Amino acid sequence: MGESNEERKPKKVTLIVFSGEMDRAIAAFNIAVGAASMGMETTMFFTFWGLNILKRPNARSKASGFIRKMLSAMSPRGPHRLPLSKLNMLGIGPVMMKKLMKKHSVPGVVEMLSLARQSGVRLIACTVTMELMGISKEALIDEVDSYAGVAAYLGEATHSNVNLFV
Amino acid sequence: MGESNEERKPKKVTLIVFSGEMDRAIAAFNIAVGAASMGMETTMFFTFWGLNILKRPNARSKASGFIRKMLSAMSPRGPHRLPLSKLNMLGIGPVMMKKLMKKHSVPGVVEMLSLARQSGVRLIACTVTMELMGISKEALIDEVDSYAGVAAYLGEATHSNVNLFV
Amino acid sequence: MGESNEERKPKKVTLIVFSGEMDRAIAAFNIAVGAASMGMETTMFFTFWGLNILKRPNARSKASGFIRKMLSAMSPRGPHRLPLSKLNMLGIGPVMMKKLMKKHSVPGVVEMLSLARQSGVRLIACTVTMELMGISKEALIDEVDSYAGVAAYLGEATHSNVNLFV
Repeated sequence: MGESNEERKPKKVTLIVFSGEMDRAIAAFNIAVGAASMGMETTMFFTFWGLNILKRPNARSKASGFIRKMLSAMSPRGPHRLPLSKLNMLGIGPVMMKKLMKKHSVPGVVEMLSLARQSGVRLIACTVTMELMGISKEALIDEVDSYAGVAAYLGEATHSNVNLFV
Repeated sequence: MGESNEERKPKKVTLIVFSGEMDRAIAAFNIAVGAASMGMETTMFFTFWGLNILKRPNARSKASGFIRKMLSAMSPRGPHRLPLSKLNMLGIGPVMMKKLMKKHSVPGVVEMLSLARQSGVRLIACTVTMELMGISKEALIDEVDSYAGVAAYLGEATHSNVNLFV
Repeated sequence: MGESNEERKPKKVTLIVFSGEMDRAIAAFNIAVGAASMGMETTMFFTFWGLNILKRPNARSKASGFIRKMLSAMSPRGPHRLPLSKLNMLGIGPVMMKKLMKKHSVPGVVEMLSLARQSGVRLIACTVTMELMGISKEALIDEVDSYAGVAAYLGEATHSNVNLFV
């Protein structure tokens, strides 16, 4: 492939995490942690339901307004309680999947989040969705590196070798 | 970064909009409008359920055949009536989300579609899906720039800096 | 666009197929077959529910453990039996969609899989998910080119012109 200059620059991976489902989150974290551990600059940009992954489990929602309060009440709080995109079966699916992962020593979302931090993955929370859904910075975990909008995302993405929307 | 020639060319963003859900459509339009307003060449390629976003609200379906007629009857007609991917709750979710967006002055899909046009985003409708689902050109809004298949998509995508499947 | 060296290298397309739904599978195969027939190096990396597409229809599951057995029993076996992401209607949707595709000579997932093989698309199955879900190599079709993890994926993806997560 011998791309000289191109080859020498560290590769860059940028993921949009739109979904708040356990299976999709695990897929995203697997790619991110894999990339970071291979020395790539890796950024995860959490938006919409993906923000649920970054929620502090015991934070009280300060959402104001009826609709935001309902949205907050109906959304899973933190990486422990994410649904599955398939076979969710009113919450039995995720419990089974978590057991299966534990048994086979496959890290779950909580462990992946901490692995991502350790391996240098940058975690960015989308300010537009936070504003819309009434999610304050205090409702999110400390590990969030920055809060940014679409311009910041595009700044990263246009210089990335791999861009995915999960 | 200083990539000389590479840097001087305008950046290019190409999105496949496969989903016909309000939240995913909003995410796609946010990226597209953001990119276009930053001077990037931006193309949205609508396929499958994503074509529902481009439907003329008051167009009569000319779909022939029982299955196509059913598909047409069961699909939302235009950007006003898209479901949510989560918390749809038989249509209450989208109504609440639209209220929330209005209250916080976040543009909805209808406004985003018009913003996309104004900022120069190219809208392409996938001819294979149109043919399959019996969607005629007349059923889609005038703002569609062109009708094309996978070869045209790949022509764009292989020269894009950011490719996403939404 | 006169990119000299860059232009002369064959373009490369790499798709992650995460979803096991008929409509998303068809979209992925359309892109892959299109790309391969235009002379691009095309790789499909099947993970999570996407592995259902590669299952041998008549293979007996050798999954061990209660949860894996349940997962296996509840997952569609092979490309004949995939659900739709929308309008699935307890399985009526996919039947209708298949009829519609047949009528309009649009190839279904089974035909697309064989087209993909003929046009040189590489099919890779994700070993991490196989291990987790207890899917053995014998449960998958012979057409799988290789079994690999995230490092192999990233090796491909960082040299691809088009990366998508479907």
